[in-house]
Amino acid sequence: MTPEELAGAIVAGDRRALARGITLVESTRPDHRDRAAALLDAVWSETGSAIRLGISGPPGAGKSTLVQAYSLHLLQDRRQRLAVLAVDPTSTRSGGSILGDKTRMPALAAHDGAFIRPSPTGGSLGGVARRTREALALCEAAGFDQVLVETVGVGQSETAVAGIVDTMVLLLPPAGGDDLQGIKRGVMELADVVVATKADGDLLPAARAAAADARQALTLLRRRHPGWDPPVVVTSAAQGEGVGDVADAVAAHRTYLEHSARLAAGRRHQDVDWLMAEITDALVRSFRSDPAVARALRTAVSAVEDGRTSPTAAARDVLSAHL
Amino acid sequence: MTPEELAGAIVAGDRRALARGITLVESTRPDHRDRAAALLDAVWSETGSAIRLGISGPPGAGKSTLVQAYSLHLLQDRRQRLAVLAVDPTSTRSGGSILGDKTRMPALAAHDGAFIRPSPTGGSLGGVARRTREALALCEAAGFDQVLVETVGVGQSETAVAGIVDTMVLLLPPAGGDDLQGIKRGVMELADVVVATKADGDLLPAARAAAADARQALTLLRRRHPGWDPPVVVTSAAQGEGVGDVADAVAAHRTYLEHSARLAAGRRHQDVDWLMAEITDALVRSFRSDPAVARALRTAVSAVEDGRTSPTAAARDVLSAHL
Repeated sequence: MTPEELAGAIVAGDRRALARGITLVESTRPDHRDRAAALLDAVWSETGSAIRLGISGPPGAGKSTLVQAYSLHLLQDRRQRLAVLAVDPTSTRSGGSILGDKTRMPALAAHDGAFIRPSPTGGSLGGVARRTREALALCEAAGFDQVLVETVGVGQSETAVAGIVDTMVLLLPPAGGDDLQGIKRGVMELADVVVATKADGDLLPAARAAAADARQALTLLRRRHPGWDPPVVVTSAAQGEGVGDVADAVAAHRTYLEHSARLAAGRRHQDVDWLMAEITDALVRSFRSDPAVARALRTAVSAVEDGRTSPTAAARDVLSAHL
Repeated sequence: MTPEELAGAIVAGDRRALARGITLVESTRPDHRDRAAALLDAVWSETGSAIRLGISGPPGAGKSTLVQAYSLHLLQDRRQRLAVLAVDPTSTRSGGSILGDKTRMPALAAHDGAFIRPSPTGGSLGGVARRTREALALCEAAGFDQVLVETVGVGQSETAVAGIVDTMVLLLPPAGGDDLQGIKRGVMELADVVVATKADGDLLPAARAAAADARQALTLLRRRHPGWDPPVVVTSAAQGEGVGDVADAVAAHRTYLEHSARLAAGRRHQDVDWLMAEITDALVRSFRSDPAVARALRTAVSAVEDGRTSPTAAARDVLSAHL
């Protein structure tokens, strides 16, 4: 199947074609990257209309449960179709994806209107995020109304995901002490919508405390989008409470972005950054693929680590011998 | 004068040689960059012993006044010599440096034990920071006990400076409302020492309020250095109050870094990052210096901005034609 034929099948709504397309864009084989570029170009005019949503939260925030409840709400109460993708910076180390597993969200996986895709593995976090952004484009072309990009809360990954979505939702587990449990530095400032989870039973007071802490933190922090005050929503996915409020908050943020012209500007900016990052990555990869360069780089790193030479001089040694 | 001769004069304490050396490392001329690398290699074994201090704060925080008071305290009460460098991300736009101006800190400029150097201009912020890091190495080789790297508070520049120093000092102006005035997102988390300024006269209550806000914010945020609780020092540079406490806090942070082995590890990590950034910059610069590549890049950017092509496909077009 040519990339153009695959593009046609994806736009026509063929799920298996979509899955094949995502596998193609996730591949690092050079000939696959060429075909992936052709595929993306063929679907590009069909992209751009979905809500692109990032969802993050520390371990213990009940992310799977909330993602499933939110998704079922969209599917059943709002007749929206959605895709769930994952960016998992730990997957390179663990050798397998811990996110996006269909067995993790059984009710969602069984639903016709939902598409769940585990995380790509390997490569730098920035590269994984760009591959996820390509998968997102394919999901948009396939007609999904919302694409959720889910990530674990390890600081760097939220920033990478924020660079490919329009709206960031941050989940907070019930507060156990006097600070926000498990929220890494800088992450609160990325949030457009904050969701306090598990507000039921014995954990209700602690969930309310987490929401209060979040509101206080937000008054101290600058916003990702000036002019937008991130709402803090208290939810119980188990009791189905607050999930509609999350969907309302996401929709309100979308309206804000459109009315303030930030949606188009933000996406244009993201796309140019992506272009430049692709070019820089390819140049560095091409340079390092030369075995002599790779050897010289290892020598340079150890000379710098030992303090024997300055980084500037070490860089010039590598470059003058091999550029 | 060869780079080796210049290095000898710098290490011997010759101020004019130091100024010439810094001019050389700030130059972007290719032959100057070669000589700068040789100079850095020649002094490299003499570097590493100074306290590397970043100082930042929003406009209105009284940065010049506090830097001068702190510096005079070190010179007069602690018999330490110090150099003041500046990273000014606005200087490329304004066409001149707004920092490091000797007329801004007259008592300091007149002092034998101090060396003040304005900001390099031009280039990316990361590149300017690396040139400042090179100037810092030359100041260390010249025997200064502390090197202060000063920057204006615009968010990105603090992060760049934090990447080349050991200890970050954040200045806060008196609080005017219910949030920390003028502190950009993520900056509070970079601080190792927080200094509330202008605690005298009518502003005393507002300075105390800023300190209280900062203490509260710090309880909500992750630390740049886990295990170190950033102290909040209230100062009046006009009345000379609290300045010695700032020096004590800086010294205590240095002791913490040494005892926790974070000093050497942090610097090693910074140096390897610097090496890789130099190599990446040089590869991109070399690629873009080809006029045909520059034209192709302009075409690619406008195709991406117009939404006519995907960033991935645009990047491959540029790379396949010119790599």
